[in-house]
Amino acid sequence: MVDQKNNYVRIFDTTLRDGEQSPGATMTSAEKLELARALARMGVDIIEAGFPAASTDDLEAVRRIAEDIGQVAGPSGQPPIICGLARATKADIDKSWQAIQYAARPRIHTFLATSEIHMKHKLRMKPKQVLASVKEMVAYAKAYCEDVEFSPEDAGRSDPEFLYVVLEAAINAGATTLNIPDTVGYTTPDEFGALIAGIAANVPGIEDVIISVHCHDDLGLATANTLAGIRAGARQVEVTINGIGERAGNSSLEEVVMILHTRHPVLGLETGIVTPQISRVSRMVSNYTGIVVPPNKAVVGANAFAHEAGIHQDGMLKEKTTYEIMRPETVGLTQSTLVLGKHSGRHAFRVRMEELGYQLNEAELDEAFYRFKDLADKKKTVTDADLEALTTDVIYQPAEIYGLDGLQVACGTMGLPTATVRVHGPDGEVHVQAAVGTGPVDAAYAAIDQIVRVPNKLLEFSVQAVTEGIDAQGEVTVRIQAQDGDHSTHAQCDEEHQRTYGGYGTDTDIIVASVKAYMAALNKLLSVQGNEPKERNAKPVGAAE
Amino acid sequence: MVDQKNNYVRIFDTTLRDGEQSPGATMTSAEKLELARALARMGVDIIEAGFPAASTDDLEAVRRIAEDIGQVAGPSGQPPIICGLARATKADIDKSWQAIQYAARPRIHTFLATSEIHMKHKLRMKPKQVLASVKEMVAYAKAYCEDVEFSPEDAGRSDPEFLYVVLEAAINAGATTLNIPDTVGYTTPDEFGALIAGIAANVPGIEDVIISVHCHDDLGLATANTLAGIRAGARQVEVTINGIGERAGNSSLEEVVMILHTRHPVLGLETGIVTPQISRVSRMVSNYTGIVVPPNKAVVGANAFAHEAGIHQDGMLKEKTTYEIMRPETVGLTQSTLVLGKHSGRHAFRVRMEELGYQLNEAELDEAFYRFKDLADKKKTVTDADLEALTTDVIYQPAEIYGLDGLQVACGTMGLPTATVRVHGPDGEVHVQAAVGTGPVDAAYAAIDQIVRVPNKLLEFSVQAVTEGIDAQGEVTVRIQAQDGDHSTHAQCDEEHQRTYGGYGTDTDIIVASVKAYMAALNKLLSVQGNEPKERNAKPVGAAE
Repeated sequence: MVDQKNNYVRIFDTTLRDGEQSPGATMTSAEKLELARALARMGVDIIEAGFPAASTDDLEAVRRIAEDIGQVAGPSGQPPIICGLARATKADIDKSWQAIQYAARPRIHTFLATSEIHMKHKLRMKPKQVLASVKEMVAYAKAYCEDVEFSPEDAGRSDPEFLYVVLEAAINAGATTLNIPDTVGYTTPDEFGALIAGIAANVPGIEDVIISVHCHDDLGLATANTLAGIRAGARQVEVTINGIGERAGNSSLEEVVMILHTRHPVLGLETGIVTPQISRVSRMVSNYTGIVVPPNKAVVGANAFAHEAGIHQDGMLKEKTTYEIMRPETVGLTQSTLVLGKHSGRHAFRVRMEELGYQLNEAELDEAFYRFKDLADKKKTVTDADLEALTTDVIYQPAEIYGLDGLQVACGTMGLPTATVRVHGPDGEVHVQAAVGTGPVDAAYAAIDQIVRVPNKLLEFSVQAVTEGIDAQGEVTVRIQAQDGDHSTHAQCDEEHQRTYGGYGTDTDIIVASVKAYMAALNKLLSVQGNEPKERNAKPVGAAE
Repeated sequence: MVDQKNNYVRIFDTTLRDGEQSPGATMTSAEKLELARALARMGVDIIEAGFPAASTDDLEAVRRIAEDIGQVAGPSGQPPIICGLARATKADIDKSWQAIQYAARPRIHTFLATSEIHMKHKLRMKPKQVLASVKEMVAYAKAYCEDVEFSPEDAGRSDPEFLYVVLEAAINAGATTLNIPDTVGYTTPDEFGALIAGIAANVPGIEDVIISVHCHDDLGLATANTLAGIRAGARQVEVTINGIGERAGNSSLEEVVMILHTRHPVLGLETGIVTPQISRVSRMVSNYTGIVVPPNKAVVGANAFAHEAGIHQDGMLKEKTTYEIMRPETVGLTQSTLVLGKHSGRHAFRVRMEELGYQLNEAELDEAFYRFKDLADKKKTVTDADLEALTTDVIYQPAEIYGLDGLQVACGTMGLPTATVRVHGPDGEVHVQAAVGTGPVDAAYAAIDQIVRVPNKLLEFSVQAVTEGIDAQGEVTVRIQAQDGDHSTHAQCDEEHQRTYGGYGTDTDIIVASVKAYMAALNKLLSVQGNEPKERNAKPVGAAE
């Protein structure tokens, strides 16, 4: 039996791997690094930084995280473990090690499917071959790295008896963590809890390793299945911020952590998460990926805390716990307040940015401060959310290949919406182009397309107001796909899939924000297609001229 | 013990009551009626149509639903039960009956809190008084109506022994359904299942009534708790479309139904839901309430089905079930395809609208067809999603008090975004006003404010593309709150709370769509404040002139 006295549940965040695999969630290397920094600061125990074999870009991003984040002590006093995913092949394991070896505490995570349906239709391997491969590849990983995690993919639909044999083989070959994924989100909590309990009871040597769970939300049960796994003995949970991930996504970090926190008297389990950082990291992931958090999302949705939404304004309900089981401050949610005004100086700005957790160099600080002053001129109150939006927009953009110099738009109900753009290209030359469209955004994008000439398909377009009030900044996220686009290898399907690129822009003018977002997505696409980025322009894109 | 042989789980939809209570989800009476029609057609067993004591408007909306929807047979062959919520007071029960009596199968649902914290801080009643009140009020409701449901509010935090006594008293007073709410979303599936099992085992007379469960998602466990309740003997589940509702919302209809459907071989339970209608009703609720469905939402999110998202394009995975546990068609999700082109005639249009489930009168059909032709001129392909968006926009708008005649906008990176609007007022006079703002939307809203002069606060603003491609229609939803706004009584807190109003607009020009959405929200606000609506203009708002 698993040692039940160990009440510490390890939080393994896979936002950068399983989360980033969801359509359109592609992040730039700078964004990945910034997110890894935020995860480490929040006390995540293990950061799955990516799938290095997917592409050279992915390998490089994991390597930078291992080097920069994997060496710095977090709230626990030691650096987070940096983990790289690898299929059960030598080439993948080599690449994973190449990327993570620079971390103080590296981990190789390899996997192979064990369900009949996956072995037959995907792997085209007999169970005996799967067993042999697990032994060989776990041992191969172990030769590089003391810390090896093995996952039997689609464990939720695997024959338990076969699973026990495979897991025992993985332990004997050196695996230190056994992760049990419900890959297709098929099980109920009763079934998944029983699966974990069966593993804890029947796999020889299981008491010497950590059992982990990895649940998907296809039936809305990911969080409950994760909890059932913990109660059956799992002491590592694989989760993502905001529950993003393939299809309906993964179990949410914020939900699992807040269950253990809120129901601590009953469950008696601990995590290392610094909960007041949850809201901020949630907003960061939503900004970087463009995947919205609905207002009714547990823990991090805008309506999640009744008392913050102004419903119970008067004092009739003296006792907050009548309708409140968590305090908003526990997850770092504070009323949106004026933090800086138009007369705030550079020092106050720098201090606030540091409090928000941004590490900006002098050039970045200059750029962000310039943008802040510009915003403070237009908008009465500048809040933390505004600061985070402009930082995202200015600092973590991809290297600029084409840059926006100016935009002019005329539209309305009279028809013929027209946009004129001025854009500078990689060779420094300036292009001016006008175009007409079905609306102002369509017109502006058409004008840009006539200059940049990268055939692409717009998959998604959305605008959100960052803060309350119509003078708020608009936040635009777009997602595009190159028409004869580059590909990336998918970890689980061994398939090449077409990459999609997200772009993000903010401005008080939503048309300007839309154009910035599109230019950002195009620049991401062009960077990956191997175009030479030039030095980033010191003057912010689209600033008033 | 509850009769476990009964394998039919009743679906009680409370989108129109608990869902509509969430901030900004306020729907017009026409929208409520249309949603009730869609729910009935989908096979919902019980529609909780509202809380009639909240306001005259709410009572009237419930009455119309009882009259129009509560008389028409659904897929089961009989009309849905129409339910009205009432606090445990005679006045509330009177109003509930006033509204629902026109249905073929009316139900009164009354509730009173039984947890120590609620009895002490909210009700300021002793347990003995609560027990007496339950007896009296259930009997009072029973005198009106054979079908009475009783809920002990905050049951999840109530003393089970006291709960048993209260429930027994409710049965003896005539309750036919006992609904057990986890009002604050506090319990884990193990705890909630045990609570239901305890009730099934310990309440005398429980075998003659239906046990119902009502779970909230504050810890992300609503769906799992609902399932645990069903497995412990509950045969009614209270759910909402997209899981909307107070705070983190309620258990999702689509998740609970698809668990029972997908895992039928294991669970052996049935519902009466026509699952291919799920996607359409989900989009309708998202449109009407302005509450977004994130791409990673189980069952109804845009990414929920991997194969639809184009990730596994080639034939390598011959066996779809490798990564797919539900077929997209099961929930009515089909590839966005061209259904109508610019040369389609009125007959083809009418047929398609009927297939989509819209019952339009001749005038509405004219208006929708006019808009369709206008759209088909601007946009290459007109999809089902486009048709639904324009129907929502044109047909189910609130009665028009102020109407938009024209809009002209100039904006860009040169500063001074300027908008000019032409608006006609309730007395027929035409106003033209120009204003400058921080962006084009801010400028247009400022111009409208100078004409309409209803001080209000913009709480939320978002734009989504309806379909793929930048020539798609933009869908804008806004949410405003009147500054010295009217109030509505909150069922659970007995508090007056300030109403918020959602507005919705679509156009290929997102600034035009933004203005339409704002005008719709203002008209909703003005209607409720008792301004005389005039006859709706035959010419669609904002059509090209």
